[in-house]
Amino acid sequence: MRLFMTELTFPTERARELVDITELARSAVRESRVHSGSCALYAQGATAALMIQENDDPNIALDVLECLDGLVPAGRWRHDRVDDNGAAHIQAGIIRPSETIPIRDGRLALSTWQNVFFCDFDGPRARRTVLVTITGEDA
Amino acid sequence: MRLFMTELTFPTERARELVDITELARSAVRESRVHSGSCALYAQGATAALMIQENDDPNIALDVLECLDGLVPAGRWRHDRVDDNGAAHIQAGIIRPSETIPIRDGRLALSTWQNVFFCDFDGPRARRTVLVTITGEDA
Amino acid sequence: MRLFMTELTFPTERARELVDITELARSAVRESRVHSGSCALYAQGATAALMIQENDDPNIALDVLECLDGLVPAGRWRHDRVDDNGAAHIQAGIIRPSETIPIRDGRLALSTWQNVFFCDFDGPRARRTVLVTITGEDA
Repeated sequence: MRLFMTELTFPTERARELVDITELARSAVRESRVHSGSCALYAQGATAALMIQENDDPNIALDVLECLDGLVPAGRWRHDRVDDNGAAHIQAGIIRPSETIPIRDGRLALSTWQNVFFCDFDGPRARRTVLVTITGEDA
Repeated sequence: MRLFMTELTFPTERARELVDITELARSAVRESRVHSGSCALYAQGATAALMIQENDDPNIALDVLECLDGLVPAGRWRHDRVDDNGAAHIQAGIIRPSETIPIRDGRLALSTWQNVFFCDFDGPRARRTVLVTITGEDA
Repeated sequence: MRLFMTELTFPTERARELVDITELARSAVRESRVHSGSCALYAQGATAALMIQENDDPNIALDVLECLDGLVPAGRWRHDRVDDNGAAHIQAGIIRPSETIPIRDGRLALSTWQNVFFCDFDGPRARRTVLVTITGEDA
């Protein structure tokens, strides 16, 4: 087994946004030349997270944000007195920064409708970072 | 360190269901003959997820489904106009498709009351798939 | 690549509590002497979980508990007739017991405000356990 590491960096453009980073992750897997193993993704930033979600219908990203804003509404948290982003921290904690996806035949083994989304709950940011740790074997 | 990969396949029987797949996962670990390491499970399908949960009381699975249906109710999402399963997608995204469980002494290191459940939020399906990626060392 | 395993054990002091275990996890990484790779943490106990969250403002832990208690209130679940801790099980299932954090330059690659919290939803307990599985390469 061997290890390949890289990072994905990209800007976000809205205050709250799901950004499809599937192609960036696929590029990292291709670059690693690992044939079989795992791709562990980790979003840095305590107001960011990763979510596997459908991508065919772009409305799902809006549904997800609307749902989370209903469950964890802005403006009612102790932390808002410090930073006014308590809801973003709580949502990021619940949704979580890491995801481990298998690699089969040199590719991310997502099913047809699964894509990888970076969730920015406190954007926009000029630069967000996802660390990529790939482990596995050659063909 | 070495790598062992397999997949678990099984049907689901209800529209919404938690299926205990602990014994299937344990079989994969035994087959791998890995003594120490990790077992990464990954549920394919954008309306499916994995959850570690108590199994002794079968009512907990019903409690979990009732809770999720209260938090993310069916029938009120943009995506429902396309597919009528928006809630299933959102629930799957929040609960997540992956889980990484340690292997100690050749066994999944779950504690006494922890079992592994496959969550089908949009069933029944003739065939659901969980990919298993085991890494570790022999005894 | 090589494997290093250990466990973190600690008491919890309240019925419901987020305990910052970042320094314990960092010690395990130092002890492993792994320079590059991953640290997989796994909380045993079906009423416990792990959450990456900000630590600078201790009020965020209270916000998280208040939020979860609003979303999954105590006292209304089938399982309460058995054990009176249904909400603790459901919350632990949603928040999840595992987290995989990259290791870079011999250190956990958390960003500035990300810390690792053990969530006890059914404490206090004299001894809680987090299993640590580190894989990676030397410098």
